Formats: sequence, structure tokens, C-alpha cells
Amino acid sequence: MSLFQNLRRRFAATPVMQDWPGLIEAYRAWLPVTSTTPVITLREGATPLIPVPAIEERIGKGVKVFVKYDGLNPTGSFKDRGMTMAISKAKEAGCEAVICASTGNTSAAAAAYARRGGMRAFVLIPDGYVAQGKLAQALVYGAEVLAIRGNFDRALDIVREAAEKYPVTLVNSVNPYRLQGQKTAAFEVVDALGDAPDWLCIPMGNAGNITAYWMGFQEYRQAGHSRTLPRMMGFQASGSAPLVNDTTVSDPDTIATAIRIGNPVNRAKAIAARQASNGAFLDVTDAEIIEAYKLLGGQEGIFCEPASAASVAGLLKRKDEVPAGATVVCVLTGNGLKDPDCAINNNDAAFHTDLNPDLATVAGVMGF
Amino acid sequence: MSLFQNLRRRFAATPVMQDWPGLIEAYRAWLPVTSTTPVITLREGATPLIPVPAIEERIGKGVKVFVKYDGLNPTGSFKDRGMTMAISKAKEAGCEAVICASTGNTSAAAAAYARRGGMRAFVLIPDGYVAQGKLAQALVYGAEVLAIRGNFDRALDIVREAAEKYPVTLVNSVNPYRLQGQKTAAFEVVDALGDAPDWLCIPMGNAGNITAYWMGFQEYRQAGHSRTLPRMMGFQASGSAPLVNDTTVSDPDTIATAIRIGNPVNRAKAIAARQASNGAFLDVTDAEIIEAYKLLGGQEGIFCEPASAASVAGLLKRKDEVPAGATVVCVLTGNGLKDPDCAINNNDAAFHTDLNPDLATVAGVMGF
Repeated sequence: MSLFQNLRRRFAATPVMQDWPGLIEAYRAWLPVTSTTPVITLREGATPLIPVPAIEERIGKGVKVFVKYDGLNPTGSFKDRGMTMAISKAKEAGCEAVICASTGNTSAAAAAYARRGGMRAFVLIPDGYVAQGKLAQALVYGAEVLAIRGNFDRALDIVREAAEKYPVTLVNSVNPYRLQGQKTAAFEVVDALGDAPDWLCIPMGNAGNITAYWMGFQEYRQAGHSRTLPRMMGFQASGSAPLVNDTTVSDPDTIATAIRIGNPVNRAKAIAARQASNGAFLDVTDAEIIEAYKLLGGQEGIFCEPASAASVAGLLKRKDEVPAGATVVCVLTGNGLKDPDCAINNNDAAFHTDLNPDLATVAGVMGF
Repeated sequence: MSLFQNLRRRFAATPVMQDWPGLIEAYRAWLPVTSTTPVITLREGATPLIPVPAIEERIGKGVKVFVKYDGLNPTGSFKDRGMTMAISKAKEAGCEAVICASTGNTSAAAAAYARRGGMRAFVLIPDGYVAQGKLAQALVYGAEVLAIRGNFDRALDIVREAAEKYPVTLVNSVNPYRLQGQKTAAFEVVDALGDAPDWLCIPMGNAGNITAYWMGFQEYRQAGHSRTLPRMMGFQASGSAPLVNDTTVSDPDTIATAIRIGNPVNRAKAIAARQASNGAFLDVTDAEIIEAYKLLGGQEGIFCEPASAASVAGLLKRKDEVPAGATVVCVLTGNGLKDPDCAINNNDAAFHTDLNPDLATVAGVMGF
């Protein structure tokens, strides 16, 4: 290329990056805010939809697969979408403190947004069952952390009681604004693809996210932004599968701590979404979750938390049912960095320590 | 609002999310790629520029401060910007393996992009001096990790030798494509602000990023996309400040492991950027870094790694010199989740463990 051509190309290149204002401003017309609502935002949303060719290859049939990598939200999970709404509305109502129960992602988001909005943040977590990165987040964001001897479901009972009795606002997904914010993820998927996908694969814990996505897909279709609606495919871990098995689980158990929930708050709404969309619920074992987790990390270059990998594990388990040529979106709800121990204990990498700092040693290990 | 008005607003609302293609496609005209270069991308770039009101308040004078939160790149640091370029060009050249020395961020990015591109990734790290999240990343992304008894500078010497002698491509920032990719961060800052900021505050380790930003600001101004150029303000940790003190440091020491580098590869270019921009280099102590780190987390809701906080610590240290009404951008190079131990050991949060799972206990701790 000549210097002149090069210069001409550069001057012709218009700046392309959008200054993303956060999801409330971006989707204001779709959300229950007014011009006087104080918007507490960390510029959440607009997360990438990434093609995953190694997963496509395992499915074949010309199926296109993308992951919606919501782990790139400001606090590393999809919870930021709901929290910007819940905290902005709490601020609008004059609230000075919020409370939530959490397996970790909600507490991180609640703490970050509440503190940014000048509020106190109380978070109840199940002692010993929160991934290290998530605990680190709650602490660094300035939450007041209460670890109880009990599981998530028990913690949720307590914070619901506390919010009834004391001047603190509940920001768990029983807070209706949370799902309003979360539905914007469906808007973004349609905006990026130009239509809804054929399948939407999603992990289910409290089942708020599948509920919110379905709401978003419906609203966008009603407004003419998409022609179709996806089948909603919800996945749970086998040791924590109350929706799959139509039961409650008193002692849920899975490596996927973010969906280790035995009595989902949004049970009825999730079932309605499945029925209306001709979707399905299925469980995946911890071994299948870890296989998908390692596949995403080691071949696609995408590091998600174990719970997120349930969406990909589920897709791979159901691959025979995917129609030829279909477009599938798997939701990756959280960033793998939130649970570094899981990565250190579950990988196929070669790790050589304590080596002499010289070329001969290094070349030998490399096989040269 | 009436139902009709509500519906009208919704139908009028056009979808706003841009489908960001990754920085090579977005800034193709500015980068050394051709139509035949295979683009290995995780949709990096387009990271948010977030206002930080608590920091603005400490500076006063009507100064506007934003952080460029590059921790929201796919592997959690600015290194992805350079790595998408370096790996795409390595793939174009037919390369089958890459190598780098790293304090952690480079190894994570190198592993993710190399594996996504079907290549092997060898990474040399200083044994015991890489944050836990970064080690987890290298492993989960399928790198072959070699931890040597020696520091970053020694590791870099070895990989340079290895790349000369064996069929592996060096992807440290001596690889010229790295800085080409990294310069796009400056483009994004100008695209978002509509002009260059007055000050650009940035941590310096190997000094590749300050070099790349300066390159980007200059190119954009030459093309007429900005009217001005920023002063380049580079900050180092006091225990690892070879550029500030115009020396080399044989045993660099700081909590900010990502900039724990005693002999910066891009020394001459960084000095040239400082001179040309009327900028300055300054050191900040570990205590000042941690204070900025806690301020960002606990009041702004932004969790960065310690090295990143050096940019904000430096700004606060030099606040008397900031002109009234100026616009300042502080670069946050990496995600705080990469170093959870640092957060757990450095926070002002209240953390109560082993509590009875009942409302009375919880309310008591909350002060009700």
C-alpha cells in the first residue's frame, strides 16, 4: 500500500466506538425509570456475543453458536444488569441501606452499586460456600458481610424478614426492578444478531435470569425488533435441580456454587417461560459442567465460572435435538476469575515449577 | 404515562447496542493487517470510560475524572488489545507456538488468544510472584506454564533467547504488533470524549502501554479526530521505579506485581512520550496505591488490580498541579479479580463469620 493510500484510508476511517452510557440510558424507554430517577451506573451491559467455533464443530449441522459473555460486566456477572435498576430505584425512594442473600455474585453487585450510590450494603452469605473472588469483591466494595451457618435458601428467608422489619431495601431477585434490568440482555442479543436466536441456553439457580430473558425477548418481538422467539433451554446442576425434577432440594450440592439453590424464587415464571417457548429444562452433572468449562477455557479462550458452563454443557448434551442451521446463544453468567480455585483444581494444563532460570532448563521442558 | 404513550415510546425506541467486532475490525484502517490476515479475536476493546465522582471531589476545581476500565477486556486486562494483533499476525505467518515472559496478565492473554488460534502457548513466570487469578487463567486457557526461580526481567531474557533459537514466536511487548493493538485504547478514549483528555494517567511497568497510548493519541490527532494531545503522566511503584529514577532495579519490590519490573523494555519510547507531551513520571508508595485501590472499590464500585490503582494514586498525589476544569483519564489496566488475596488482605469492610442462621442474630450484627 502506498503512503498516499495509507493516509487516505486513515482519514476516511471514522471513529467507531460507541460511548455506551450503561443499560438504563441505552434502554430507557423499556424500563420503569423517569427523568428524575437518579441513575447509578457503572456502564454495565453491552457485553460481547462471541462465536465459539470449537463448540460449533462438536455440534455440526451448520449450527451457529455464540456465548453471551456477561462475565464482562463491571462486577463480573449478569447481576449488574438488575442491580443498576434496583439500586437506582432504591436511591430514588430515599433508601439508605440495602440487603441481600447471595452465593456471591449478587453480593458483589449489590455492594458495588449501593456504595457508588452512597448507601450501606448488607450481604448474607452461606459460610464456606462462596467462591474466593466473590468474597474478595464484597469486601473491597465495602459491603458489611454476614456469613451464616446455613445455605442460600435460609439466608434468603432471613433477609426477607429483615427487610420487612427494618429500614433496609431487599435487592434479591424478588425485587421486581432486578428482572427489569436483566431483560436488557435479551435486547442486546437481538440487537447483535438482528433477530432472536433459535435456542437460548441458560443456567438456572433462582431462575430470575431465564424469566428476565424471556420477558425481554417477548417485549422486543412485540415492538417488532425481532421476528421470532427462542426456545428457552434451562439447565441446572444434577445435585441442585429443583426445577428439572419439580421439587425442592433441602441440601443442594454442586461445584457450580452460583446455582447451588434448592428452592428457586422464580419457579412459576420459569416454568411459564419454558411452556410458552416450547423450551425444556435439563440437568447436567458436575463432570459435564467441568468438561464444558475446560473446553471454553482451553479451546475458545473464554474463562467463565462453573455455573456459566452449565449452559454449554446442556447444549452439548442436547446437541442431537438442535435443528440444522440453527442459531444458538449460550449465556455465560459470570467471570471465571470469581472462582480461581476451581480453575487451579480443574485444568489440563502443564505446570512446571521451581525451574532453574536458564535457557537449557527451559528448552528441555519445552521439548527442544 | 398512558398505555398509548408507553407503547409509542417503545416502538420509537431503536435498538442501540452496537455489535462490536473486536478492535482489529473496528480500527482496521489504523492497524498493520490486510484482508488475508486471520483475525483471532475475543471481541476485546470498547471498554467503558467510567466517571469517578468521589475522586473528582478530592480534586475539586471542576476537574472531570474518568477511569478507562480495561479490566473488562476478555481476559481481564489491557494485554488483550496487543495480543489480538500479535496472535493474528503470528497465525498469518504460519506460527504454531508462542512464548512470553509474564507477571501474569500477558500470560493470560497469550494463552487465551494462542489457544483460540490453535497454537501452543508457553509462558514463563517468576515462581511465587504471580497473583492467583492470573495463574488460574494461564492454566484454564491451556498454557504450558514454566515457573522459574527468578524475576520477570530474567524470564524475559530467557524467552528472547528461546525465540531466537527455536520455532516459537515471542509475544512480549518487544513484539511490535503488541503496541499497535494497544494504541487503540487511545482511539477509544478520544471517540468517547470527543477529544483527547488534558491528562492521561497511567501505570508503568515495561512501559509499553504509555508508549502505545501516545502513539494512538498522535495518530488520531494527525488524522483530525482530536484537536489536542494529553500530557502523559506515568506512575511507578516506589520499590520498582526505574523510569522515575532513571536507573535499573535489580530486585524490584511492590504489592503491584503487574508493574514489578526493574528494567523496562520500552524505556526510550516512554521517555520520548513524556518529553514530547510535556508529561511527567512519578512514583507512588504501596500505601498510596492501596489507598487509591480501596477508594476505587469502596466508593466508586470499581475493582481494579493494585498496579492499576497506581494511576489514581498518582493523580491524587499530583492533584495540585491539575488545571481547573481539566479532563483527566486514569487507565485501570487490569481487573481486581486477578488478585483476590490483595482484596481480602486490604479492605475496610466489616466481615462477620459463623453466625447463627436466624433473624435475631443477624439484626443484632446489623445494629437493629
